[in-house]
Amino acid sequence: MCFYCLFVFYSVPPPFAIVSLSFPCPLRRNNDVIMYKVTVVGSGNWGSVAAKLIASNTLRLNSFHDEVRMWVFEEKLPSGEKLTDVINKTNENVKYLPGIKLGKNVVADPDLENAVKDANMLVFVTPHQFMEGICKRLAGKIRPDAEGISLIKGMEVKKEGPCMISTLISKRLGINCSVLMGANIANEIAMEKFSEATVGYSKNKEAAERWVQLFRTPYFIVTDVQDVEGVELCGTLKNVVAIAAGFVDGLEMGNNTKAAIMRIGLNEMMVFSKMLFPSVKESTYFESCGVADLITTCLGGRNRKVGEAYARYGGKRSFDELEAELLNGQKLQGVLTALEVHEVLSDRGCVHMFPLFSAVHAISAGRLPPSAIVEISNEKPRYTLHYKLREAVVFHVKK
Amino acid sequence: MCFYCLFVFYSVPPPFAIVSLSFPCPLRRNNDVIMYKVTVVGSGNWGSVAAKLIASNTLRLNSFHDEVRMWVFEEKLPSGEKLTDVINKTNENVKYLPGIKLGKNVVADPDLENAVKDANMLVFVTPHQFMEGICKRLAGKIRPDAEGISLIKGMEVKKEGPCMISTLISKRLGINCSVLMGANIANEIAMEKFSEATVGYSKNKEAAERWVQLFRTPYFIVTDVQDVEGVELCGTLKNVVAIAAGFVDGLEMGNNTKAAIMRIGLNEMMVFSKMLFPSVKESTYFESCGVADLITTCLGGRNRKVGEAYARYGGKRSFDELEAELLNGQKLQGVLTALEVHEVLSDRGCVHMFPLFSAVHAISAGRLPPSAIVEISNEKPRYTLHYKLREAVVFHVKK
Repeated sequence: MCFYCLFVFYSVPPPFAIVSLSFPCPLRRNNDVIMYKVTVVGSGNWGSVAAKLIASNTLRLNSFHDEVRMWVFEEKLPSGEKLTDVINKTNENVKYLPGIKLGKNVVADPDLENAVKDANMLVFVTPHQFMEGICKRLAGKIRPDAEGISLIKGMEVKKEGPCMISTLISKRLGINCSVLMGANIANEIAMEKFSEATVGYSKNKEAAERWVQLFRTPYFIVTDVQDVEGVELCGTLKNVVAIAAGFVDGLEMGNNTKAAIMRIGLNEMMVFSKMLFPSVKESTYFESCGVADLITTCLGGRNRKVGEAYARYGGKRSFDELEAELLNGQKLQGVLTALEVHEVLSDRGCVHMFPLFSAVHAISAGRLPPSAIVEISNEKPRYTLHYKLREAVVFHVKK
Repeated sequence: MCFYCLFVFYSVPPPFAIVSLSFPCPLRRNNDVIMYKVTVVGSGNWGSVAAKLIASNTLRLNSFHDEVRMWVFEEKLPSGEKLTDVINKTNENVKYLPGIKLGKNVVADPDLENAVKDANMLVFVTPHQFMEGICKRLAGKIRPDAEGISLIKGMEVKKEGPCMISTLISKRLGINCSVLMGANIANEIAMEKFSEATVGYSKNKEAAERWVQLFRTPYFIVTDVQDVEGVELCGTLKNVVAIAAGFVDGLEMGNNTKAAIMRIGLNEMMVFSKMLFPSVKESTYFESCGVADLITTCLGGRNRKVGEAYARYGGKRSFDELEAELLNGQKLQGVLTALEVHEVLSDRGCVHMFPLFSAVHAISAGRLPPSAIVEISNEKPRYTLHYKLREAVVFHVKK
């Protein structure tokens, strides 16, 4: 029993003391229970929403420190003020999430090392190309008992194996790292519209449950699955399928075709993941990170949008040009991922097992017209899902 | 060897004879190989498209008689002509699929018994409420070696077990009956846009492969799975989810929410099916009949449409009224199915396992507002898919 409790216990008459004990005890949080302190590394659109979700929970739950520190890549705003100063003054990320209050317990910090030094829960949510550099800066400077989670989509899929962001963090920082992925359009979650997400973890179920606690709100439902690779690969591979869905939209082929392409894409995502990691579970694809994220990305999303424009122009304007015109400086990931996936498949001699992935690559490389996306039906022999899965695992073992 | 082959063999010099033998032999079709003769029972929108698909294949493939007979419920057209006469004259179902040529080998027949008497492959594609009467009329009047397939969606789900249309046909006519379901908006297939479908069969793999041959075209990809119950239940249960997706659209909740609702719906469809039939396979939900049909139905489709209108009017106008206004005499299935599903769940004491199905029923019965569709997140405890699947099987066994 902590000092506060003793004080309450002995200084008020028994019935009141009992009532008092049922209230949260402010001092106990610092004494005999492990306290979790969270830092969000990144402060873009999704990072700011993540900070908002987390901040509402650290206030509410006893096992977390109220304060959520958010590392902000410092920028000068047009007004001449620093972005961190404005966030700390107004409680809003006026640049990347304007109009949304993050919570008063969110503290913007421009100093990366200072932001992470006390945290034992680290949330990584930067553009993926920055993670290598961030890990270098942070190595040896974080708490050894820290747990990490990556919200970063868009890892590279190289021949020698995919560069999972969670693995990068885990190896470089020497910490356990989970991932959180799902059907998560940041602005919709910021407006507290009902959404879901999936935490993928490798071993530490207890840590995964803590991440679920930290992110879950009544409008943001989080579940955990023991399949970190499956969950992280979903977040990357869906972009290839979204480009295919964009082609279908651009060619005005209708809902049957779009649904068929999405279904074939989901299957290829699953088989490809299983080929790389036989431990990947089929059930992961029924979670938010799988089928739901695919649906959201194929209904809206930038990869779909540029794919649609590419098909409308009959492949006569390049992806680079359309990206610059349509995405306001944001980057398209699906085309690059399609190329990377194709290289892995060529290397393993199993391009024929992935007609959709291969068609997206060939079309975006200008070797086939956009309409080729539906000619995958002529691929022979046609593999059923379970045959593919078995074969995928054999390929993996042979490799 | 048939007469034609003997003739060819002995009347031309050997090298030519060998070449000739590799060409299709017109007479052999009637002699030593089983010939398949197809009748389509039904001639609505989907029935006519099915006849078109089949007719293109019977012409092309040697093991089928060219002629495809189509039973047409006789109607007088505004011109005074009979529908069957017009179909046979113009090769078009001017009432239910105008503008599309069915194939000259499609013969419309107003006499049900006559239409089926020579067929050994029977395709059933009528509104589901007519099947009971059709089976009564056909009992004892079909070939004993006939195989059936049902394209009919919308079976009833009764407490004593679901009334599968395939089971009804199978029992009443004493024949084996498969099903064909999928993301199949009839008009899009009629326009030869790329689509997929799934044949579900129970035992006869060979017959299933014959159905695949009969329906498959370069733009209509069909695969078979040994899970007749899973495939048929998909076709019915997706309508409940589509109503929920309509509510989300009507409340303008965005793509995250819609994807989440569709994902939860897909999971509940799977668990519910497995509760009724433990043999149902999870992989069936990755086929066209599962996730793809769900996507098509939740993007377009009449259940979604009426659900959207219901939510827009804040539940103040009844489903019956909106159905009459929006569907031109077509019927809404999802509301009735939601009620039937709810009765099964109440009877088995497992309503809590299906928050989405239950919410759709409660909302459509006027007991909850449309916004309750996203309050399912407050259901506790939240079951993971695998826990649910296990529990579903236990519930089945207890029953």
